[in-house]
Amino acid sequence: MRVELINTGTELLLGSTVNTHLSWLGENLFPLGLRIARQLAIPDGDIIRHALLETMGRADVVLVTGGLGPTSDDITRELTAELLGLPLEENAEVLAHIQRYLASRKREMNPHTHRQVMVPAGATVLHNAYGTAPGLYFAPRPVAAAGGALSPHIILLPGPPRELKPMFTDQVAPILRSFTGDTGAKEMRSFKIAGLGETQVSTTVEEPLLSLGDIELGYCARPGEVIVRVIGSREQLAAAESIIAASFPENYFTAEDVPLEHVAVDLLTRMGQTVSVAESCTGGLVSHRITNIPGASHVLGRAFVTYANEAKTDLLGVPVDMLAAHGAVSREIAAAMAAGCLRTSGADHALALTGIAGPGGGSPEKPTGTVFIAIASKSRSEPVVEHHVYPTNREGFKAMASQAALDLLRRRLSRMI
Amino acid sequence: MRVELINTGTELLLGSTVNTHLSWLGENLFPLGLRIARQLAIPDGDIIRHALLETMGRADVVLVTGGLGPTSDDITRELTAELLGLPLEENAEVLAHIQRYLASRKREMNPHTHRQVMVPAGATVLHNAYGTAPGLYFAPRPVAAAGGALSPHIILLPGPPRELKPMFTDQVAPILRSFTGDTGAKEMRSFKIAGLGETQVSTTVEEPLLSLGDIELGYCARPGEVIVRVIGSREQLAAAESIIAASFPENYFTAEDVPLEHVAVDLLTRMGQTVSVAESCTGGLVSHRITNIPGASHVLGRAFVTYANEAKTDLLGVPVDMLAAHGAVSREIAAAMAAGCLRTSGADHALALTGIAGPGGGSPEKPTGTVFIAIASKSRSEPVVEHHVYPTNREGFKAMASQAALDLLRRRLSRMI
Repeated sequence: MRVELINTGTELLLGSTVNTHLSWLGENLFPLGLRIARQLAIPDGDIIRHALLETMGRADVVLVTGGLGPTSDDITRELTAELLGLPLEENAEVLAHIQRYLASRKREMNPHTHRQVMVPAGATVLHNAYGTAPGLYFAPRPVAAAGGALSPHIILLPGPPRELKPMFTDQVAPILRSFTGDTGAKEMRSFKIAGLGETQVSTTVEEPLLSLGDIELGYCARPGEVIVRVIGSREQLAAAESIIAASFPENYFTAEDVPLEHVAVDLLTRMGQTVSVAESCTGGLVSHRITNIPGASHVLGRAFVTYANEAKTDLLGVPVDMLAAHGAVSREIAAAMAAGCLRTSGADHALALTGIAGPGGGSPEKPTGTVFIAIASKSRSEPVVEHHVYPTNREGFKAMASQAALDLLRRRLSRMI
Repeated sequence: MRVELINTGTELLLGSTVNTHLSWLGENLFPLGLRIARQLAIPDGDIIRHALLETMGRADVVLVTGGLGPTSDDITRELTAELLGLPLEENAEVLAHIQRYLASRKREMNPHTHRQVMVPAGATVLHNAYGTAPGLYFAPRPVAAAGGALSPHIILLPGPPRELKPMFTDQVAPILRSFTGDTGAKEMRSFKIAGLGETQVSTTVEEPLLSLGDIELGYCARPGEVIVRVIGSREQLAAAESIIAASFPENYFTAEDVPLEHVAVDLLTRMGQTVSVAESCTGGLVSHRITNIPGASHVLGRAFVTYANEAKTDLLGVPVDMLAAHGAVSREIAAAMAAGCLRTSGADHALALTGIAGPGGGSPEKPTGTVFIAIASKSRSEPVVEHHVYPTNREGFKAMASQAALDLLRRRLSRMI
């Protein structure tokens, strides 16, 4: 079945609002055996008529979001009814719901809210538990404006995500499932690989993965990681994971929809160990990412942002003469920061980062984007230091450097567990 | 001029990636006097040919994102060249750039990366400062596949946002500006207001703003701030700012496209003062946000993540019996953390946060989402503490609490300057 999505809303095209409906609906259609073949965003107004006409004879299901509300630019319901040649009728059930909804909020019905009570004849009402505007489902019917061609299944959904999501899950998914039956054959998995480039990953695994037969393969580069997306049968996905894990024993870190920090916190939790962090150039991002994971308080008790040299000396015991001899951005200082952080925090592991986030501050020997990342562990005698150069903007640099630090921790932990 | 946007990428339709290009490009086209009339997302593959054909004779400018990379599903460049009837030629400049780029990362050129060196004859290369794949600009030309119709201006941009954004700003915007000239009539401004709700803001300013005449008005709620978007003449925007500033003297903080932390760092820089931060529940996010701003090293020398009670005692001198008496999440501990942070850091101001990020950990008196935020300043005798409850998820809580802390700092500084 071919599914198309139409998002209406001038705010989407002006950029004031990020369109999250596409990704949310895409993720929630996949388990039903459906995918969005084409998504279109258009401004509020009567262009929706043209967009719907385009889908006739091409799509099986069309989902439309937005334009069902009470304000003057919300005309999706009216224009769809007109296109399908259906008169609008007051719906008693919707009227009762909106009256209850407004009364519970001490608001009153007015002509604007009353428009939402009008339902095209023959459409199925989708109850809106979290707002006033109902959703609507139109079964296929011949459309005069399309030369008598049969319309797709058309489903109108409210724009606010908190209204759309439960309506889709509770009411739209069952309708769609009644078309598709139990398709269950294909599954999707995203395998995540840290610290390698997209080309490096694809050249290594593409041939063996494609030899698995009829699978779909895609790659996506994120800061410091590459995602290999595979769609196939359960057996093919298991084989794909074996190939990827064997190809990148050090770098492959998860097939789950979780970030790298989640894997690191999980490893620490299972080992009953703790970590501390001393950050210069990343300014708190590594700690922030670790503490995004529920349960992080069991594995991280304290962390330090030591931007200034004096902070490195006061808080981590980095010797003043070592700073003078090597400069704050150096292998030696990263190692001393990690060793000091390990000692003063009492944690089992300590990460330290020192680098040049930019803009500016670089030199020919240490260009902007240079970072030294160290890890120290109670059970090891010496810190290990990695050196990277991420010549991008400040935000990109922080993302890449924090990713490399978390991966350094993950690799050490996975060798110890 | 009619602008259309085509986003390619199977990951966008499967929902693995949120499409942020639409909103970013929408926001950045507006100041050029341009808006996106229609945005389409399609999977990787040869459907891009059909999508481009559709725009012929309808659009003046078509922006295409994605599909320029080295992997097998990246075929936007090849298919566009084919559609326009242009042969691919090795480009020496692109080759030299990619070789330099890979060498600085200790990676090697291979047949996959080499594909990116091939440029359609007559296309203008848009240099990619942050990646390998160049962007491409095609001036209008007759297209045989479209019956000889003239193609729009076609601009191909790389998918990764860190590559696309600078390329658009530095190279695409000047090209577009050369078409539009100085349109100058309407401008858009986004006024940012911290710490108030969307309804509170809109009910206060809607009437006076609409009385300015023919303007376009929109509202957008973000974590801890409301953005009022006004489109109108320069004079109308100046009047709108006066209305908003007078309505929210404490809460209105900028008409620039900068985050709250930028305003706070600017104030500190102008005052020649410094800040330190002691974070419990936000785990480093406040420091991370401050250090996102170039020049932050002049205003922040050190900061602390004190998740564990012992860390609050060891690093900030919070008395053990005070922790026992009030609990770590309390007005008293927030004040003691801020006072301790001010003392030990030597900074002019200190922020401290203690709260319950969730999930779990709440109680009837202190529900999940509770946070106490304190500010201490050298020039004031006592810390000031604010109490908030943000009953949302962990990520949302951290965003709201960090925003409230930065706003507390901003308000104090703007009263002192």
